[in-house]
Amino acid sequence: MAKPLFQKVVIFGVGLIGGSLSLALRSKHAVGEVVGFGRSLQTLAQAQQLGIIDRSGSDLATELGDADLVFLATPVGQMPEIMARIAPYLGTHTVVMDGGSTKCDVVGYAYKHLAESVAHFVPAHPIAGGEKSGATAARADLYQNKKVVITPMPENSAATIARIREAWEVCGASVSELTPKQHDEVFAAVSHLPHLLSFALVHGLVKRENHDLLLSFAASGFRDFTRIAASSPEMWRDICLANRDTLLVEMGRYEEELSALRNALSEADGERLGEIFSVAHAARSKWTP
Amino acid sequence: MAKPLFQKVVIFGVGLIGGSLSLALRSKHAVGEVVGFGRSLQTLAQAQQLGIIDRSGSDLATELGDADLVFLATPVGQMPEIMARIAPYLGTHTVVMDGGSTKCDVVGYAYKHLAESVAHFVPAHPIAGGEKSGATAARADLYQNKKVVITPMPENSAATIARIREAWEVCGASVSELTPKQHDEVFAAVSHLPHLLSFALVHGLVKRENHDLLLSFAASGFRDFTRIAASSPEMWRDICLANRDTLLVEMGRYEEELSALRNALSEADGERLGEIFSVAHAARSKWTP
Repeated sequence: MAKPLFQKVVIFGVGLIGGSLSLALRSKHAVGEVVGFGRSLQTLAQAQQLGIIDRSGSDLATELGDADLVFLATPVGQMPEIMARIAPYLGTHTVVMDGGSTKCDVVGYAYKHLAESVAHFVPAHPIAGGEKSGATAARADLYQNKKVVITPMPENSAATIARIREAWEVCGASVSELTPKQHDEVFAAVSHLPHLLSFALVHGLVKRENHDLLLSFAASGFRDFTRIAASSPEMWRDICLANRDTLLVEMGRYEEELSALRNALSEADGERLGEIFSVAHAARSKWTP
Repeated sequence: MAKPLFQKVVIFGVGLIGGSLSLALRSKHAVGEVVGFGRSLQTLAQAQQLGIIDRSGSDLATELGDADLVFLATPVGQMPEIMARIAPYLGTHTVVMDGGSTKCDVVGYAYKHLAESVAHFVPAHPIAGGEKSGATAARADLYQNKKVVITPMPENSAATIARIREAWEVCGASVSELTPKQHDEVFAAVSHLPHLLSFALVHGLVKRENHDLLLSFAASGFRDFTRIAASSPEMWRDICLANRDTLLVEMGRYEEELSALRNALSEADGERLGEIFSVAHAARSKWTP
């Protein structure tokens, strides 16, 4: 049998993101052994039962030196501590990546906590997920035909970046490179802002006295517009806080956009309203994910 | 063979809404003959070819007196003229309904243009549709398990209202009654505002220099949030203008909601952000259309 792409993979956080990477690598015979670390023994046991990991790890000192790939798939808030704990034990050939939704903050943590091991670390953001989370939601095809953005560090060698690309590509994803700042600006605009707007719409409706009446007549447009308001509140709180400055700029832009629409509407300016809607309609009709 | 529910149905506007009513009534053997009127001879010919209408009508004076049901399924803007033209010819037993997305304006047109025939007319709004329109998009099951709101006129007899209810129920819809004002408030909140917000997001992105980069990383959250921005610009311009005052109130409420979120974010108030997101998450997770 051919040697797998990675003999040993260590995953921190065996939920949707971490679990799906493992299942995808396994389905492609791209991994020998998968070892899981996590805060909850119950989740680790469940992940083992689901065939996501071979076993849960207990001792970083012995597990990391021969690891080919380490994947930090926890909430971003846990990464500083994990980075500090793993830094002393990484093997010379070990490559490390994360799966967080924001990148400037993760890069900052890496410089602070990985110290000289920073050259091993390639920040990554798989553009996949959804409202469901946890090990039971993990699937081997989660990354199939999805995009992954990596934001390499100046310290990374070409070989390290190539290994991380391979990890995602073997799972069916296509890999793009951006700077951390570009990444956070793009995702503030096309992901973080829409989530915030969707949460705001539902929150504004729910707090009204007649919310049962209102929601009883909501239909498919509402359903799709608010699907992302069913996302994890904790995860989105953390993303918004992590990308706060850029997201505030996006909110300001959007508020200006709304204010222009409000003016057109209050002046009953059908021509202007029609123009705005037509531009959006044309762009959205030709866009495909 | 049993007598159908409606021997003769006349439909103005044989697109998605009008065409689907005809196909639904036909599939339930609830109609004898369907006659179509419209501004485009080509559309009428197409509707005939698709089996939506038996024939296109040419003379209102001869077609309306023996019609059991007349359905105004055109854009709302065309209704005043059609109402004025049909009023003199309606049979004593003819019932009339519309399918418009706003109701206060339609009720106003009915009083003005249907004159004493206003008792025949029951305003209706089927909560169905989507981005697609036109006769080719019509389907027999469009109204299956959908809601239809009717806003009866004080002049309607119980028998007239019951006939209109039957028309929708035989197509698989469930019928609710609201006042026109209630209707327009509910739909401003759960439909018109989300459309406007979705158009605004896409318009704001498209006008930016780097819109190709931005849109290339947009994923499933963006896809669903902006699905309604692919809706007809003309139809939504008209809906927004027709429901302008109520929609402006909803916009004001939403802007306050956004402003509260902006404050929480700029103060890095994670607790407040988390609360807002949690309330929205809980409500959206338990909601079903």
